[in-house]
Amino acid sequence: MHKKGCSEEELFSFLSSVKENDRAYNKVLSSMCTIPHPVAVRAHNMFIETNLGDPGLFMGTASIEEMLVERLGTLLHHKKACGYSTSGGTESNIQALRIARKLGNSKCPNVVVPESAHFSFDKAADILAMEIRTVPSDDKFRMDAEKIEEKIDKNTVCLVGVAGTTEYGVVDPIEALSDIASDRDIFLHVDAAFGGLVLPFVPHTSKFDFELAGVSSLSVDPHKMGMSTIPAGCLLVRDPSYFHSTEVDTPYLTVQKECTLCGTRPGASVAGALAVLDFLGEEGMAKIVDSCMENTRRIIKGMENAGYPVATMPEVNVASFCCDETPKGWQVSRTRLGHMRTVCMPHVTKDTIDEFLTAIGEM
Amino acid sequence: MHKKGCSEEELFSFLSSVKENDRAYNKVLSSMCTIPHPVAVRAHNMFIETNLGDPGLFMGTASIEEMLVERLGTLLHHKKACGYSTSGGTESNIQALRIARKLGNSKCPNVVVPESAHFSFDKAADILAMEIRTVPSDDKFRMDAEKIEEKIDKNTVCLVGVAGTTEYGVVDPIEALSDIASDRDIFLHVDAAFGGLVLPFVPHTSKFDFELAGVSSLSVDPHKMGMSTIPAGCLLVRDPSYFHSTEVDTPYLTVQKECTLCGTRPGASVAGALAVLDFLGEEGMAKIVDSCMENTRRIIKGMENAGYPVATMPEVNVASFCCDETPKGWQVSRTRLGHMRTVCMPHVTKDTIDEFLTAIGEM
Repeated sequence: MHKKGCSEEELFSFLSSVKENDRAYNKVLSSMCTIPHPVAVRAHNMFIETNLGDPGLFMGTASIEEMLVERLGTLLHHKKACGYSTSGGTESNIQALRIARKLGNSKCPNVVVPESAHFSFDKAADILAMEIRTVPSDDKFRMDAEKIEEKIDKNTVCLVGVAGTTEYGVVDPIEALSDIASDRDIFLHVDAAFGGLVLPFVPHTSKFDFELAGVSSLSVDPHKMGMSTIPAGCLLVRDPSYFHSTEVDTPYLTVQKECTLCGTRPGASVAGALAVLDFLGEEGMAKIVDSCMENTRRIIKGMENAGYPVATMPEVNVASFCCDETPKGWQVSRTRLGHMRTVCMPHVTKDTIDEFLTAIGEM
Repeated sequence: MHKKGCSEEELFSFLSSVKENDRAYNKVLSSMCTIPHPVAVRAHNMFIETNLGDPGLFMGTASIEEMLVERLGTLLHHKKACGYSTSGGTESNIQALRIARKLGNSKCPNVVVPESAHFSFDKAADILAMEIRTVPSDDKFRMDAEKIEEKIDKNTVCLVGVAGTTEYGVVDPIEALSDIASDRDIFLHVDAAFGGLVLPFVPHTSKFDFELAGVSSLSVDPHKMGMSTIPAGCLLVRDPSYFHSTEVDTPYLTVQKECTLCGTRPGASVAGALAVLDFLGEEGMAKIVDSCMENTRRIIKGMENAGYPVATMPEVNVASFCCDETPKGWQVSRTRLGHMRTVCMPHVTKDTIDEFLTAIGEM
């Protein structure tokens, strides 16, 4: 630390010079985050000092968190879902596995995940000292439904399916998983961190949420397609009693127990998340998702015309291509199998895609 | 979710009506958080869309995180400390124990913590499947240095000391812990989430940080006495190699590996944290801490005059009293032993204390 402070002018001129090294979102096709919606930013500022880790002090903000959970639960076919706002998909996934481990009560617990699962499951399994078992993908990069059963044994405490995979934008066979989970009485967690705010607005998608009786918990991140500020994830569970297994006593707070992973938690981004959903409503969300899906089809068509076929047809706005090069100045990413991966988030406009396709043509 | 959206005017009139149920900070003596400093809020807004989970996109913001780590490391006697910005003390404590578990390499790992440790250690031990062993407090509510060794065995992978306890504001005998840790080659984590931004500015306090050779890691939370926006914690470690044990591969991101607990992470509050430290400098921080400590002495003196002695003389701005009642309209909290607990954060002014003492007199 410096001995002496500086003036506000010096400080902000320094911070803005540093910020110039950030990339503007305009040529970013690799991120599942986006520029937050203006109402999210405004609500965020209104609640900037709030701490959901101490809900007795912030009862208004705590009720906003409840409303967010209720909105998302209703959207995902379980109005009475219990949940809380997490720091994001990783925390939600860790907590779901933690609950499953407690309920499963095995000395050598294992979790069965698709090959395509997000790396947060490796992290979760490492932290929770659980064995991770991977089900290979089928030719469409989805969990191969035929190969799930052979991975399960009496120590399997959790099954995981992904609704909107990070790499290929596909949905695992959640119905099949749900049947297996119900039959064998195993906890089923659905990672819908990305797809949870896309799939409900896309016509004719397969079932993936609490509508399926075997689904025990679900992650959905408002800070991805919900266009809220960061951090705003959400973990939803079917049965409130699941949270008993993660509760600790909390002396010297305004509540007696709490079940989250973190302690102090921002209310600002939670207000931001609710603000976007209420401002847009289902119709407004559907319009934005529709435009992202249309842009996804546009990029797929353009890439195919340029000789780079899509690896598989996605169900959400993530498309990966058989293309080894990257056009200069653009930010795309690579899947583990080496495909070029793009995400058509709300900041990616039709014009952005056309510009990108021009750059592809000039490669 | 509602079918139709609403107007921005309706939305913000609703949000402000809900916010009225939050408590204003002015009569809150129970919180370790406070109203964020105006420069933190301004910096937060400047970086509102940034995501430290994808540092290749946000290289400017990532360098701000590095600067924050360097400032805090220098302040805590280890300029070359390695670290990252966490969601708060709980994540820092979980990660420290996770590193210690990996390095310790025991099949039945245990962690030795003071009786006074924050409840996040219960959470961490539960998540990480570690046994937690508690060292009783001495008559000053500090970890009893004489009773540490008897809790340690060959499966002890971590020792924990607290610098600025949540309940009594005291500092555990970190020097003694450091000697034991060095002698027996055990990982020592210091929870200075609160004290880390108080003790360096208080004259004549005992050593608690990297100055002591046995200290392996340390939590310090800018969103407490650093007056930044939430979430802004920080985990610092002595040796960069410690983070190898928490790394996972991160395909489809702009970096290859990452070692944090969460994935997506806000840059906004990290910029807020740096802004406060740079704006105030050591001298400005010292002035604020000095005023909080003076207020702490003021409340202690006033309470003693009213017949409610302090449970023990604190070393940071937390004071707990032998007082069973709570004056109406004020928010204090209770320690596990039933003492009335108060924290003189920057939002608690001299006038607030006088008003509180008046209310105590009228009880």
